Formats: sequence, structure tokens, C-alpha cells
Amino acid sequence: MGVLSSTIDVPTARGRLARLRGLTEAAGVSAVLVSPGSDLRYLIGVGGGSFERLTALVVPADPAVAPCFVVPKLEYAGLGHIPFDDLEVEVRPWVDGEDAHALALAGLPPGPMAFSDTTTALHLFQLRDAGATDQRPAWPIVRELRMRKTPEELAELRAAGAAIDRVHSRIAEWLRPGRTEREVGSDIAAAIVEEGHAAAEFVIVGSGPNGSSPHHALSDRVIERGDVVVVDIGGPLPSGYCSDSTRTYAVGRAPEPDVASAYAALQASHQAAVDAVRPGVTCQDVDRAARRVLVEAGLGDHFIHRTGHGIGLDVHEEPYIVEGNVLPLESGMTFSIEPCIVFQGRWGARIEDIVAVTADGAERFNNRPRDLVVIPG
Amino acid sequence: MGVLSSTIDVPTARGRLARLRGLTEAAGVSAVLVSPGSDLRYLIGVGGGSFERLTALVVPADPAVAPCFVVPKLEYAGLGHIPFDDLEVEVRPWVDGEDAHALALAGLPPGPMAFSDTTTALHLFQLRDAGATDQRPAWPIVRELRMRKTPEELAELRAAGAAIDRVHSRIAEWLRPGRTEREVGSDIAAAIVEEGHAAAEFVIVGSGPNGSSPHHALSDRVIERGDVVVVDIGGPLPSGYCSDSTRTYAVGRAPEPDVASAYAALQASHQAAVDAVRPGVTCQDVDRAARRVLVEAGLGDHFIHRTGHGIGLDVHEEPYIVEGNVLPLESGMTFSIEPCIVFQGRWGARIEDIVAVTADGAERFNNRPRDLVVIPG
Repeated sequence: MGVLSSTIDVPTARGRLARLRGLTEAAGVSAVLVSPGSDLRYLIGVGGGSFERLTALVVPADPAVAPCFVVPKLEYAGLGHIPFDDLEVEVRPWVDGEDAHALALAGLPPGPMAFSDTTTALHLFQLRDAGATDQRPAWPIVRELRMRKTPEELAELRAAGAAIDRVHSRIAEWLRPGRTEREVGSDIAAAIVEEGHAAAEFVIVGSGPNGSSPHHALSDRVIERGDVVVVDIGGPLPSGYCSDSTRTYAVGRAPEPDVASAYAALQASHQAAVDAVRPGVTCQDVDRAARRVLVEAGLGDHFIHRTGHGIGLDVHEEPYIVEGNVLPLESGMTFSIEPCIVFQGRWGARIEDIVAVTADGAERFNNRPRDLVVIPG
Repeated sequence: MGVLSSTIDVPTARGRLARLRGLTEAAGVSAVLVSPGSDLRYLIGVGGGSFERLTALVVPADPAVAPCFVVPKLEYAGLGHIPFDDLEVEVRPWVDGEDAHALALAGLPPGPMAFSDTTTALHLFQLRDAGATDQRPAWPIVRELRMRKTPEELAELRAAGAAIDRVHSRIAEWLRPGRTEREVGSDIAAAIVEEGHAAAEFVIVGSGPNGSSPHHALSDRVIERGDVVVVDIGGPLPSGYCSDSTRTYAVGRAPEPDVASAYAALQASHQAAVDAVRPGVTCQDVDRAARRVLVEAGLGDHFIHRTGHGIGLDVHEEPYIVEGNVLPLESGMTFSIEPCIVFQGRWGARIEDIVAVTADGAERFNNRPRDLVVIPG
């Protein structure tokens, strides 16, 4: 039997499609439409492409109706390695000028349809016009499918964690006073690929005041001796499974006492959240565990985002570790724990590890020191 | 007054927002929601980011209600240079745990709402739950705004065309027998950036049989003497305006007579489509002009996609040059003309220029030779 990607063979893909059908049936919808992106990659090993031309896998709940893969003919030429016959998926290639949206719905039983998160308004409205008038979100279905990782997926995420740890271990090669964030970031991006990733999906080097903007990427700011620098980096392995780890460094000298004491609270916050992880605890509880420590240290207002996000084929996916999410953790779930402290316009710090829920706690996939490591310079 | 990006100053952005309001009113909807992407960049100079966290510009038709920009607080830190006050746009930052979708709709007059193409199902369904139940596509509104380019936009697209022409002019530096498509593509990508692009957004090197798959990108196939090679490349300038040009090369020796004669028909098809361009002619007419030549040459079945796509801040945007599109061309519209011929599993060829509609015809933004250029080797 064929292999669809480095982590999906035909029996795996067939199993996933069958589970998706079952979950779709249980959700009371007649079919789910999966658009290009990680959901599609999870099912058939390729993420697909195209924006204005419809590509979609349509999976009916009724096992008597075959799933179909609607794809522009000019994209399909690049998918010849996918054994759609073995997957019992009917391929429906289409050419410019044909009504791809009607083609996607042809032969479906009537009823509500669910659409994966990445489906765009451009296509949703055309699908509505073509007859899919009762539209619902697919995420409650898809998260059941993807949220608990298999041992093979955990192995990929563990490898991704080790790969990004190797990059952090080399940080002193690049992070020095006198270099710009962009220069440092460019070297880090190259190392992310050297250490086994397929791409450097994101590289944040937030030095000094830029460290107080959590989604700051890279700038031409010159790093100075005494800066506190947030380095948040990651990307997908060739399998598609992602790394994401943050460490904060002090350049050239030990931090001032106020920085050191706030950082100590951040470390305690991170540890408290990791300690809180075990099956049955809610996502919100983990967020609260991290937040409580910072609030008690008088730093609650400086922790300006959620504690974490799930990770897998997407860098951000379910489950989100955020107030209001009462989903109970289960063994096999994987997510980041990344409390931050930011002092607007002055400095910031963050510590981020990916963890997996185990039978009785958490396994960390990132294991570099969590202190405010002082880089010589 | 501030500058939002290299091509948008405050008066321009204010003018675009005012036009959007007028078009929204005329379309009979109460507000349009613009998601991250080129539509947002067109309006305020930045494309925005974030996937699962809502970022959106909401523009009501009613001029008495200010537009609002809903943005995660941790993203907003990176947007401090945008003079939202001067734009009379109310910023609504939000933090994890808040209901961003309700925030986006707060204060809006009731009525149907339109959503830009890139809005995802993830947010559309949450906006529906938050009260936006009558949802419509924004593209009929947005295309009126973006489809006819200003002189400044035409200048950017002209510069983008010249930049990608410089890359094509250097092709013999890289395209040689014995090298893989990936090696050649990697060099081309570097040159795309060297010649002034912000990024090499796509690099297609389709050699020999791979040339018959129009969206083939790069492979490890080793290029051989005698190959016909399709090179389709482009990317955005720092301003965001895109290049996209295809040339087909013969490696090492003149093509066989059957290839030469089919290629001659392709050249004639391309020329016929360019000759057909002038105000008042429909998009479909241009597609037909290209197709007719290939049909008459007995090659109709080998031209497997539409003749072209609009281009601007997006590589693919309105207007699409395709059968069924009866939109009449107007001065200032810009699009590709790119007929192809493919012989499945054997070879393919394509010629692609970007053109702008002028008062009485077309201006080409790509001007490299359109013959099947023979590369020494």
C-alpha cells in the first residue's frame, strides 16, 4: 500500500477518514468540507493549495456515499502520488469555467454541512449559492480527530522539540552586542533549517524595548550590552509537525535586580503551569495556575496573553490554554506553556515549552535551561 | 500627515475608506468586515496577521458611525506607526478571553454585512453567533475599489515587471544541463530578491515532462540537454505590488520541429490576446482570442487553464480572464496573459506577460523576448 507522506500511510489515512465520518454522523451533519491546510494534510498527507480556485475534500457522514476530492486539474497533476483509489476517495478534477462549487456538492445527501476553519468567505458564499445553505463550523468535529496525538505524532513533536532546542543551544554564536535583530534572526533562521526543520516559520528576536511586544518579529535595532532579549522560534519538520520554543537571554551582563526578581516570578509561573498539567484538569485551570503566581507577585497586568496553544501540524491549534476553556485535558494532548511579562517600551520576557499530557502529568518536549541565561559579550 | 506604507499616505487611505463606505452603501449592506490580507493592506497599508485571534477592520456604510479596527492587543504593539486617529478609525484592542467577535459588531447599525474573501469559516461562524446573521460576499464591493489601478499603482506594477524581467534576462547564469530544478530554482529565488523584490513568492522550474504540470514548482529532476523548461516566477516588491512572468527556454539545442511549430502557435495565441485588449472588450473575449488560435492549430485540448488573472497587491485577483466573465475591461485594469500548451508527461510551454489596459489598447509590463530562447549548454 502506498505512503501519502512521511507520517501517513494508507491504513492510517483510511482510519482517519473513517473516524471523521463517524464524528460527522455523531455531530448531526450530513457532510464535512475540508479546505486546504493542516486538516487536509492530517487526512491525506498534503495540505493542498490554491486560493481562488476551489480545492476541497468532501466527506459525507453516510458510509454509502464516497468522499470526493474536488481539485483544479492543473493542481491535480502534482498530486499523482496520492493513492486516492486505495483511500476510496473519488477525484473530481475541474477546469477553469466549470462550476467547482456545484461539483463539490453533487451527490451529497441533503442536510447541514460543516466547513473546516480555513475555508474562506470566497468559497463559503459560492457553496451557499450552490445549495449548501445550512453551514456550520467543523472545528468541534475536527478537534476530536486531531487533538489527542498518537504515539507517532508525539514522536514527531518530541523530535521537533529537540531540533529547536539545538538551535537555542547555539544562541551565543549569533546573539552579540552590535548586531541587529535582523542579522541575528537571519542566522537563527538558517540554523532552524540546518537542525532539521523544513522551514523557519517564525523567528522573533525582541531586544530591549522590543521584547515588550509579544508578536514583534525582527527589526534593525542594534542589540546592546545589558539588553534582555526574547527569542521565540520554530517551524515544521518535514513531516509537518511543528516546534515552538521561547527562551529569554541577558546580553553581556547579569540583569539588574528588578529584572532578576520579575524573571524569577516568571519562572515560578511557568513551573506552576507545568505542575498543574494532568488528565482531567481543565485548560482554564492551567492558565489560572500560571496567572496566579504572577498576580501574587504584583505582575498580573504584565502577563497580557493566554498561557498557551495546542500544537501539532499547526503551530496554533486546539486546545487553547485560556480562561473560559473548560475542556478537560486528556493524555496525548500537546500544547505550549508560555507565560510572559512585558513592561511596555522597556523590556519583556517569556519562557515557552511544549508539553504533552501523560497519564499522570506532563512530558516536556523542550529542555533547555529556563533561567535568564547570560550571553557573553 | 503620516505615511502608512511606501505607497499609502493618510489622504490616500482616507480616500479609499470613504470610497469603500460609498460602495458599501450602494451595495445595500450596513457594513463590510475586512480581514487580514491584501484588502486590508490596500486600505491601511498593513496586511495584518493572526489566524485564530480575530483581526478585522469594520467599515459601516453610515458615515455617522466610525470604522473600527479590532485587533489582539499583542499584535497592536506592532502597529503603532499607523495613524488611526488621522484615519478616524477607532481602535479596539482585545485580550485573550474577551469576546472579540461581539466587540467587532458593537455599535453597528442592524442589517446585512459583507465579508472580505480571506475571512475564514472560523471567524464567520463566530460572527454569526455574535449577531451578524445576514452574511454576504464583499468581493463585488472590494473589486470596484481595487480593480482599476491608479497611476501610482501602475508605476509599482511597471517596476515589478522590470524587476522580474531582469531575473529572466539572467537565466543562462543558472539554467544548465546537469543541475536540478531545485538548484536552479534556489538561485532564481535569490536573484528575485537581489533584483528588488521583498520575497520570491513563487518559483516554478518545470523541465521536460514537469513542464506539462502548470503548477509544478521544483523537483530534484536533473535538467537535460534538449529539455524545454517553463520558468514562471514572481513576488511582491516592498510596496506589496506583485510581479509574475513566465518564459519557456530550450536547453542546449534548438527544439525539434513539432515543438517549434506548437510553440509558434502559442506565441500567436499570446499575441492575439494582447491585441484583443482595449476598453469595452470583455474578459471572456480576451480568453477567447487566445483560445481561438490554439484551437485552430489543433491544440485546443492542450490549453488547460484560463488565459489570465488580475494582479496588484495579490498575485491573483480580479479581473479573471476566463470564459463566462463578461466584465468589460476598463483603463487601468491589470492582468496576466498566459496561454499554455501542455503535452501530458512530455513537455509544456507558457508565455506570460502582465498588461495594463490603456485608453486604446494594452501596455505590457514584461518585455523579454517571447521566443523559445535557446540557452547554451
